[in-house]
Amino acid sequence: MIADFLAKLPPEVRDRLPDKLPGVRDRVHSTESVTYAFDLNTLDYFFSILLSFQTYGGSEVGESFTVASRIDETDLDTWESEWQALAERVETRANKCLNDGHEVSAAEHYFRAYTYRRASVGLCDPQSDSEFKTGYERGRECFNTAVDCVDDPIDRVAIPFENAELPGYFLPAEGTAEQTKTLVMLGGGDTFVEDTYFMIAPAARKRDYNLLLVDLPGQGILPDEGLTFRPDAERPFGAVLDWLTDRPEVDPTRLGAFGVSFGGYLVPRAAAHDDRINACVANSIILDFADVWLANNAQWLARLEDTPVMDLLPRIARPDLRLVLELMDQYMWRFGADSIEELLAVSEEFTIDPSAIDCPTLLISGEQEYEDHEVFGPWQDEALSAIDHPDADLEVLPTDLGASSHMGAGNLTLMNQIVFDWLDDVLA
Amino acid sequence: MIADFLAKLPPEVRDRLPDKLPGVRDRVHSTESVTYAFDLNTLDYFFSILLSFQTYGGSEVGESFTVASRIDETDLDTWESEWQALAERVETRANKCLNDGHEVSAAEHYFRAYTYRRASVGLCDPQSDSEFKTGYERGRECFNTAVDCVDDPIDRVAIPFENAELPGYFLPAEGTAEQTKTLVMLGGGDTFVEDTYFMIAPAARKRDYNLLLVDLPGQGILPDEGLTFRPDAERPFGAVLDWLTDRPEVDPTRLGAFGVSFGGYLVPRAAAHDDRINACVANSIILDFADVWLANNAQWLARLEDTPVMDLLPRIARPDLRLVLELMDQYMWRFGADSIEELLAVSEEFTIDPSAIDCPTLLISGEQEYEDHEVFGPWQDEALSAIDHPDADLEVLPTDLGASSHMGAGNLTLMNQIVFDWLDDVLA
Repeated sequence: MIADFLAKLPPEVRDRLPDKLPGVRDRVHSTESVTYAFDLNTLDYFFSILLSFQTYGGSEVGESFTVASRIDETDLDTWESEWQALAERVETRANKCLNDGHEVSAAEHYFRAYTYRRASVGLCDPQSDSEFKTGYERGRECFNTAVDCVDDPIDRVAIPFENAELPGYFLPAEGTAEQTKTLVMLGGGDTFVEDTYFMIAPAARKRDYNLLLVDLPGQGILPDEGLTFRPDAERPFGAVLDWLTDRPEVDPTRLGAFGVSFGGYLVPRAAAHDDRINACVANSIILDFADVWLANNAQWLARLEDTPVMDLLPRIARPDLRLVLELMDQYMWRFGADSIEELLAVSEEFTIDPSAIDCPTLLISGEQEYEDHEVFGPWQDEALSAIDHPDADLEVLPTDLGASSHMGAGNLTLMNQIVFDWLDDVLA
Repeated sequence: MIADFLAKLPPEVRDRLPDKLPGVRDRVHSTESVTYAFDLNTLDYFFSILLSFQTYGGSEVGESFTVASRIDETDLDTWESEWQALAERVETRANKCLNDGHEVSAAEHYFRAYTYRRASVGLCDPQSDSEFKTGYERGRECFNTAVDCVDDPIDRVAIPFENAELPGYFLPAEGTAEQTKTLVMLGGGDTFVEDTYFMIAPAARKRDYNLLLVDLPGQGILPDEGLTFRPDAERPFGAVLDWLTDRPEVDPTRLGAFGVSFGGYLVPRAAAHDDRINACVANSIILDFADVWLANNAQWLARLEDTPVMDLLPRIARPDLRLVLELMDQYMWRFGADSIEELLAVSEEFTIDPSAIDCPTLLISGEQEYEDHEVFGPWQDEALSAIDHPDADLEVLPTDLGASSHMGAGNLTLMNQIVFDWLDDVLA
């Protein structure tokens, strides 16, 4: 049927079809060395991140696999409905714990109610599907109730930037009255600030770091307020540093910044322009963002945009291509682009000159990403030799520790061991 | 070939073959509602426990699935070798962290080096395979190095009992100078005391309980010293209580005991005989242990014991039956039985009269175990109505939270929410 359809296309349209299916994230965001539960690489990758969050209280493996067993990969709506249903079950239990006065248990369940709710909106189009925002906000409410329930201080913060505020959480180091080491952690191109809690927060606390989690423009729900990704990440990051260096807990001479995924652009870009960053960690570094689209063949989608194929694609495409299309909607929203063509065009402005980075810098890359990916691998090598500081290191996360894919998903304990042990030495 | 072999058996032997393959643990210890990585139920169940340990620092999902992908279920030796290899990789990294002075990271990796090493010996015959003991001891060394690296106090203890000592770990509640609530936690029929750390320790600490983890005779490595399981679990448990009530941190009026798996026999049995236990939790209660063997058709193996089939079975059996045979070796060792027949005979002495339990008691059972199992389900109901205290409760761990199998494996956060919220109320 699709073949029939394609045969009827005018030649000038048919000729634009690629030999190979584009996968916006397929090759980077995959867990090719291991399969957890899904045939679709991207779903399995998202799932692996959620499984990884268990280390920091963000999931339970029985809950996650129960949902996975109920998701039909040929019907992506079940991804949303099943995570949603789990979020509701866990939230119900959290409410009961809270009503009964069991705050520790309530917090543990509210935290997971957040991650599951947030997973449920992971494939939504932020502009056409109101569930994206309402689902996220419902999850954030759970997260904040958890924050209120835990003993350890977690301060909700709003960092002034231009005419807006960047939402974040500041977790002061415990057990020290003095100014101490501080880390700012940024997520990526499709994260909310609350997600980053489950990537790092308990690890930072155990090691007596102040930790700031924050969304820059483009991240979290900020595009809804018109704050989309901007190439000059050093501007909003500068506002973050202004705010941070005013905190009494923060030793401004021992200030690190760490970015994962698209945070691998944001953080090094800021470090290249702002010398208040004393240590820069990128997992992994992105030097020229437009190349990610090219490597993933996304220009094919751009070329089809003005053809009738594009209207039909959501209905006729294979699940993996449908998934790509849904994620493109998110990226367009986050980059303030009205079309894929525009997304690719604005992406060209997101570049870093690694020779402008002159602080200690650690690059981290999953073995599979580093060895196999046509742009991520070479970027690490290029940056490593260009960075203008003797303390420039690369750590490749090994496949045999289950951390070979993008961001080292699958082994957050390992990721944070590498990050903090390096920071301990550099910020000593 | 097996059919040929069976055809040549003398009729009196062939007639003893069952219609249905016995599975010592197949139906109880299974994750039928969810499959994680293995076709063999028992392996998948063991795997699910290890995955669950991630909540408390006992595994990382990427590491676990990498190993699973390398295990060949038709060659059970690969179970041992692959977990062993992972344990070594993680231990190597732990050593490096320690040498470099990064104690937090070292502890995190030593803890996992323990669980992976311990997983590697999970199918060994303790009597014929020296790796059982040496592998465990190597793992325990890692565990103890981790204990030395963490800030929170974890005291290694040796509790005098008759002419021996019961090994354990005492984790005093923090932040209180007064006597406070205390929980004793026991594992099951094939656990080591260190395993129980990953089931509960951080959960108890967060809730300001003193926690004692200890092996009773039959558990851990104690059978190696001749201390096998004994029906009068109240005797060794009494020694534990003697020791515990001498500790300055322990409020003897707020003392709970919790057992999982075969601990569901040990703890309620002690509670039925020793009124120093103020609250009893069993996940789930075992009233007549011999029935577990009958429910699993193990008497078939006993009947074959004196026939030539038994010698051949290890070589000809299907992997699931081979697995059963290997586990029977462990149970014989732990129960001090020289044959399966003897194991079944001594098991008959392990009975509890639930009407003798007169303290608040919580029974917990996975939904699948409770609904489907021919003895576990009925035992919970029988005990619930017989227990001589108004605070007798049953909590069924729901399938849709991934906790339906034996012990609620798959969702330890849920298990501990239920345990501690109940204890909070009862020991208030």
